[in-house]
Amino acid sequence: MSLRIIFADGNVGEETDPVAALEIYRHSTSHLMAAAVDSLFPGTHLGIGPAISDGFYYDFQRSEGFVEEDLEKIEVRMKELVAQNLNYEPSIISKEEAIKYFKNRGEHLKVELIREKAGKQLSCYRLGDLVDFCTGPHLCSTGQIHPDSFHILNIAGSYWRGDEHREQLQRIYGTAFMAPDELHAYLKQLEEARKRDHRKLGRDLDLFSISEEAGAGLVLWHPKGTRIRLSIEDFLRKELFKRGYEFVTTPHVARDALWKTSGHYEYYLQNMYVFNIDDDEFVIKPMNCPGHIQIYKSQMRSYRDLPIRYAEFGTVYRYEKSGVLHGMLRVRGFTQDDAHIFCTREQVYGEISDLMDLVLFIMKSFGFDQYKVELSVRDESNKKEYAGTEEDWRMAEEALTESLRARGIEWARMEGEAVFYGPKIDVKLIDAIGRPWQLSTVQFDFTLPKRFDLSYIGSDGMSHQPVMLHRALLGSVERFLGVLIEHYAGAFPVWLAPVQVIVIPISEKHQEYAEKIRRRLSEAELRVEVDDRNEKMGFKIRAAQTRKVPYMLVVGDKELQSGQVSVRNRFQGDEGAQPLNNFLEKIGELIKTRSTRP
Amino acid sequence: MSLRIIFADGNVGEETDPVAALEIYRHSTSHLMAAAVDSLFPGTHLGIGPAISDGFYYDFQRSEGFVEEDLEKIEVRMKELVAQNLNYEPSIISKEEAIKYFKNRGEHLKVELIREKAGKQLSCYRLGDLVDFCTGPHLCSTGQIHPDSFHILNIAGSYWRGDEHREQLQRIYGTAFMAPDELHAYLKQLEEARKRDHRKLGRDLDLFSISEEAGAGLVLWHPKGTRIRLSIEDFLRKELFKRGYEFVTTPHVARDALWKTSGHYEYYLQNMYVFNIDDDEFVIKPMNCPGHIQIYKSQMRSYRDLPIRYAEFGTVYRYEKSGVLHGMLRVRGFTQDDAHIFCTREQVYGEISDLMDLVLFIMKSFGFDQYKVELSVRDESNKKEYAGTEEDWRMAEEALTESLRARGIEWARMEGEAVFYGPKIDVKLIDAIGRPWQLSTVQFDFTLPKRFDLSYIGSDGMSHQPVMLHRALLGSVERFLGVLIEHYAGAFPVWLAPVQVIVIPISEKHQEYAEKIRRRLSEAELRVEVDDRNEKMGFKIRAAQTRKVPYMLVVGDKELQSGQVSVRNRFQGDEGAQPLNNFLEKIGELIKTRSTRP
Repeated sequence: MSLRIIFADGNVGEETDPVAALEIYRHSTSHLMAAAVDSLFPGTHLGIGPAISDGFYYDFQRSEGFVEEDLEKIEVRMKELVAQNLNYEPSIISKEEAIKYFKNRGEHLKVELIREKAGKQLSCYRLGDLVDFCTGPHLCSTGQIHPDSFHILNIAGSYWRGDEHREQLQRIYGTAFMAPDELHAYLKQLEEARKRDHRKLGRDLDLFSISEEAGAGLVLWHPKGTRIRLSIEDFLRKELFKRGYEFVTTPHVARDALWKTSGHYEYYLQNMYVFNIDDDEFVIKPMNCPGHIQIYKSQMRSYRDLPIRYAEFGTVYRYEKSGVLHGMLRVRGFTQDDAHIFCTREQVYGEISDLMDLVLFIMKSFGFDQYKVELSVRDESNKKEYAGTEEDWRMAEEALTESLRARGIEWARMEGEAVFYGPKIDVKLIDAIGRPWQLSTVQFDFTLPKRFDLSYIGSDGMSHQPVMLHRALLGSVERFLGVLIEHYAGAFPVWLAPVQVIVIPISEKHQEYAEKIRRRLSEAELRVEVDDRNEKMGFKIRAAQTRKVPYMLVVGDKELQSGQVSVRNRFQGDEGAQPLNNFLEKIGELIKTRSTRP
Repeated sequence: MSLRIIFADGNVGEETDPVAALEIYRHSTSHLMAAAVDSLFPGTHLGIGPAISDGFYYDFQRSEGFVEEDLEKIEVRMKELVAQNLNYEPSIISKEEAIKYFKNRGEHLKVELIREKAGKQLSCYRLGDLVDFCTGPHLCSTGQIHPDSFHILNIAGSYWRGDEHREQLQRIYGTAFMAPDELHAYLKQLEEARKRDHRKLGRDLDLFSISEEAGAGLVLWHPKGTRIRLSIEDFLRKELFKRGYEFVTTPHVARDALWKTSGHYEYYLQNMYVFNIDDDEFVIKPMNCPGHIQIYKSQMRSYRDLPIRYAEFGTVYRYEKSGVLHGMLRVRGFTQDDAHIFCTREQVYGEISDLMDLVLFIMKSFGFDQYKVELSVRDESNKKEYAGTEEDWRMAEEALTESLRARGIEWARMEGEAVFYGPKIDVKLIDAIGRPWQLSTVQFDFTLPKRFDLSYIGSDGMSHQPVMLHRALLGSVERFLGVLIEHYAGAFPVWLAPVQVIVIPISEKHQEYAEKIRRRLSEAELRVEVDDRNEKMGFKIRAAQTRKVPYMLVVGDKELQSGQVSVRNRFQGDEGAQPLNNFLEKIGELIKTRSTRP
């Protein structure tokens, strides 16, 4: 596939790279939207209108404001402009000329941009009546845009240049694809994502809330959310103990001295919450590493003690602008399933290798089978920007690469994407509707061992510096639950479901038997409720389905007499009457194997 | 028993109340110590010298400073003054006269006190050459003090009037009893307590540390300490789920708005850590209640939902002066095993009753059989100082009283000791060497439901305000571990021990078998280590004893051939060779029953 495009200097070319082509296509559709808005709503001022990962947007300033109903009108006008097959017409003009032109049109935002960004000469593109300051390239004409492959999505508030002290604008989002069926698939995914929105499901299933009074970005975990969290934490803790980790517990606040030693005070202060005790400054921890390092340092270590693997469900607090907060996915306080490994250079490969096994095992356990792996390495042309020796980097990059190769995992090598203190592997999970989520990370750190002067006595009797690894499997428990909710659309596997079984007595005379069943299940450590409301059985079954409870046990005369239960599951429906022990055995097996289906 | 005493006006009387008598006795011994110091170290200035709960102290100011060796000299001189049978001679003089007298002697601290505290007339007591400003009463003479029933204990730094901006003084602590055997018993308990000091054992057993760099009063839980903590938390959590509690998780920081509503901002600010996010003020939570209340309020509640019991291991941070911090027992950050119960008035008695059962069950589970119970009620003569209605107070006090009576628990009724927002029960545990520790508390709260406008819809369809209870069983996990360490002198019951079993191979050729045993135990979720050091068996057994590990499994040729293990336990020693399954069964039973002895 190739796309005919026109550059700012008027030359026409072909873009064959599909990613670059799609970006140009969307950017041109954004100009098309601006032209439509300009013709429908004269006097609207323009901000900027780039392509973004899932489409495009344009920021507008209009005193009357846009409302949802305007979006359809804009889309209709865009289609008319497509039908007119208008050209994208580039021109090069002088900065003065451009400023004069946009000033005349009252486009003060464009004037500001040109003043700051443009050289002596700059390029503009005309589309119909609209001239925009733009470096291009663009499609040659609107006829190249398929009239049924773009859609205007929604309006949101925004600030000019993202600065909350500047003009408030309205951002209209749209998306565009090369072909209608791609748009169709994308809109379907959007619709599916809307149904799975963890904020809505979190409320409907009573899992968590965020209260204005308590503060934005701070999650209150309700009982049912906490049940899921405990299932996650218990599972991880058992697994980590099995794999030679030890758990530690470190305070949520620490003196500034610690963060000065770690370097966070110098490089990360804008994200840290600071307060005073007496004359000392303290920090609410944004990371768990310095705490774990204190424990490592609490005594002399020998090579016989290594590897040391400290794990903690460590709750950290980091500053985020209120505008970017988003349910459980972007918050100001979150609990990392954090661990730090201190080991010798000889142990590095074994540790990395075990870590990759662990990452894959954990993700599979939660029902994720697809992932994208990125290996971030140094910029080879700029080696002196990185901490750590040449030898350390080679060892670390080799260990990471080899751990992937040995498992037949495909990865993308991200040249120059490593942070200065060490290379890393990031794992992005693909959820049920194809969206990627950055979760696991395995990261070398060549600076903290030096900054904190960590050491161990080697078998040679000399002091050595250990290698330090940071790693998180889920990333944060908050974000992970958000992802789980959207992945499962709230219908959790039995082992994670906050309520696993609902017992439904058909009428009042079956309540005693229902209660007896509940006790039996509860003794088996199942999470079980009785729906003893005075309602019809069909109503109660529907209610349990709505609450996405995996199993319903219906008990009436027949069951009471035979001492059985009638089992229904959320997916396949009726499983028929059976002795309670059969059911207990089955559900026990599903939980033990962390099965994702009944 | 009665004690002859002399009042400031020169009248002689008898004190028959043993508590008051002991206080006068100790206060007089304190004057005796001051007289001894004055004669041994002329030019020493006097602060104050009261009786305290376990003895007495006197604050001194002396440019050269006292050292440990001085204490014996002081004690010897005190005995000489006892032998001289000196009288405590009271006199009443005018304020001016007193100021002149003490000024002449250079006692500027006394002068300051007299200026502030005394009326026109004041009383002094002379003992030998030393005259002290004192309201008395005192013993009549030093001959009443038994020469072998007092002891000077130690020196510590102190500030004049407890103000760190004032003169630094030295405080000499001593203790005194009516009879030598009481002193002897007390000193033995002190010695025993020193051996059990949780700070020393915490270090020796590698349970926790506190780092200067991370901050005073902030506990770093090491792997072995965290193992104990997890055992405690898992046990409590299972028990609470069984008893109808639900767990929630609330953030460690919240907006000031929440604390203004709760009243903490007004009444508790000096103990709270405050910081800013953007233009909002936030507080690091000193309490969990407001967070739990937010969850209660996240939806409409009906009488059918009550009682609601929210539990959380909630880590809170409170300001404490650095001088009062003490290991794990007094800290700046601690994790409460907190819960809040929201119920109807009709449910109060049942809830309180269940709570008392729970408190007793939990304490027994941790090996505490003795306790003192205090019931704090209103000051009946000052009812308008309290929140809540007359009816609420009567109901609450009755429920508390009845729950104790029904269980045959003795209690002390503390008139006027209730806080303004509700009556409470405090439970003080008595540890292995007879010391009381305030741990559990059950507390009514009549203010928060009003401040947060809590409600539920009653069976009458009307809105009602629920009753709210605060309760903690352990108090804080940090403090509780401190108490547990001292109670058990670090030798924890099997179910709590951070390492439950050490496998000791007799020589290198038994290591493989030892490792096999370790794996089997580990699969049974026991906490087990192999001591594979190249050391003699006796050395390894002693090492395990020092680490207070409950069980040692020794494996050599005999065990390898018979497929058995030789079991030793920390208390009774050798239990002989046996099949591993026998041992597994036995230790499993000890853990399940939370037995305090092997």
